[in-house]
Amino acid sequence: MMRIDILTLLPEAFIYLNYSILQRAQAAGLVDIHLHHLRESATGKHRVTDEPPFGGGGGMVLKPEPIFTAVESILQGEQMNDHPIILMTPQGRPFTQSIAQELSQHERLLLICGRYEGVDERVRQHLVTDEISIGDYVLTGGELAAMVVVDAVVRLLPGALGAAGAAETDSHATGLLEGPHYTKPASFRGWDVPDVLRSGHAGQVARWRRQEALRRTWERRPDLLLTAVLSEEDKWFLGQLAAGEEDT
Amino acid sequence: MMRIDILTLLPEAFIYLNYSILQRAQAAGLVDIHLHHLRESATGKHRVTDEPPFGGGGGMVLKPEPIFTAVESILQGEQMNDHPIILMTPQGRPFTQSIAQELSQHERLLLICGRYEGVDERVRQHLVTDEISIGDYVLTGGELAAMVVVDAVVRLLPGALGAAGAAETDSHATGLLEGPHYTKPASFRGWDVPDVLRSGHAGQVARWRRQEALRRTWERRPDLLLTAVLSEEDKWFLGQLAAGEEDT
Repeated sequence: MMRIDILTLLPEAFIYLNYSILQRAQAAGLVDIHLHHLRESATGKHRVTDEPPFGGGGGMVLKPEPIFTAVESILQGEQMNDHPIILMTPQGRPFTQSIAQELSQHERLLLICGRYEGVDERVRQHLVTDEISIGDYVLTGGELAAMVVVDAVVRLLPGALGAAGAAETDSHATGLLEGPHYTKPASFRGWDVPDVLRSGHAGQVARWRRQEALRRTWERRPDLLLTAVLSEEDKWFLGQLAAGEEDT
Repeated sequence: MMRIDILTLLPEAFIYLNYSILQRAQAAGLVDIHLHHLRESATGKHRVTDEPPFGGGGGMVLKPEPIFTAVESILQGEQMNDHPIILMTPQGRPFTQSIAQELSQHERLLLICGRYEGVDERVRQHLVTDEISIGDYVLTGGELAAMVVVDAVVRLLPGALGAAGAAETDSHATGLLEGPHYTKPASFRGWDVPDVLRSGHAGQVARWRRQEALRRTWERRPDLLLTAVLSEEDKWFLGQLAAGEEDT
């Protein structure tokens, strides 16, 4: 069973982890998630966790001691650095599906949620082993980022997804965007499902889906084609798309 | 006041929106957030919202009718397409701080959370006006993505942040990563705060911070330097970093 510890000033905001696939994965014993309130590791009457930055400038910075104390207490009895200690921060490496794959191989993860202006630099220098950002935008804290990482990682644990096979064709899991999906009704407000999907011809359906995934990726995220694994037939189809674009 | 409507199969997982800056922004009347359960717009005894995809392949796809019905009901009396109708999907345009800025200018936003294998393509073709992805990874649904967008957008509404000025220096808000922050204690386990931050010399502090932001961006995300707004002094400093790298 994988264990995930999350250090945060806002454990009550993690309700999301109690639903759907994450709930089922915990109930099935695939993952054990522990939320730790940073304030419980702060000392003194007021259990202060943040202070203004040296040098001024407004905002508050998370103090080093409570974070070191909390992490050392959570990993008590374990070799520090045996497990990733990950700071959620906009300055971290951009999170991708391949990082999710990488993290899903570990027995244990510890996620630290930054907040306010950030965390004291000594946490970054002397405590964490990794830093992850979920995207190039400003969030109020690392909580949503931690939930994103947990969601993406737990889905990859063997047995987490009920319907086998579904995970492999998801956008980004194949290195491509997924193509269109259609469900009932076959005709909705005059807009019909493509004939091929109702043909009952599995080979044609698979070929159409692959081509539509390639087309969508070509149109929307051509950058992904640089790293996707492509067959000779895929390359031929992309060549057709490129030729068609030149014609117009 | 901005209004945000969110259409989801999991409204109870949005507790995050009730804390911190998002809670205060709602209490202060800066934003009005409405959660809508997709099931309430589904018809029939079982209020079915998803069906298997045409063409087979496993997984479930969100049906078009409940989504069209819900959006039309939410925007009743409004001109459709006056307001962004945004599908949260890994196939969308990658979310960035400049998209957050763009969305924060609207009076109203409607976010649709995909789930399972995705939504019927006709929703994409004939209903939504925008599609957004928060990153290149696979999530269980669009709920976390919607929370990320709401968090990033609401922070930008005038008055949402208590401490004025803090937002402008955040990582990604300047186009650069932020440099280090330090707070008390000045010495922790033998690791000291840099002297310049305790010098009391505002000009030197500002210069050091700018240079450390440039250095961190150079080291970790040089791609961001292509679009950041840089002064002549910034460019000189980056030239020094580049020269230093060549020496080693």
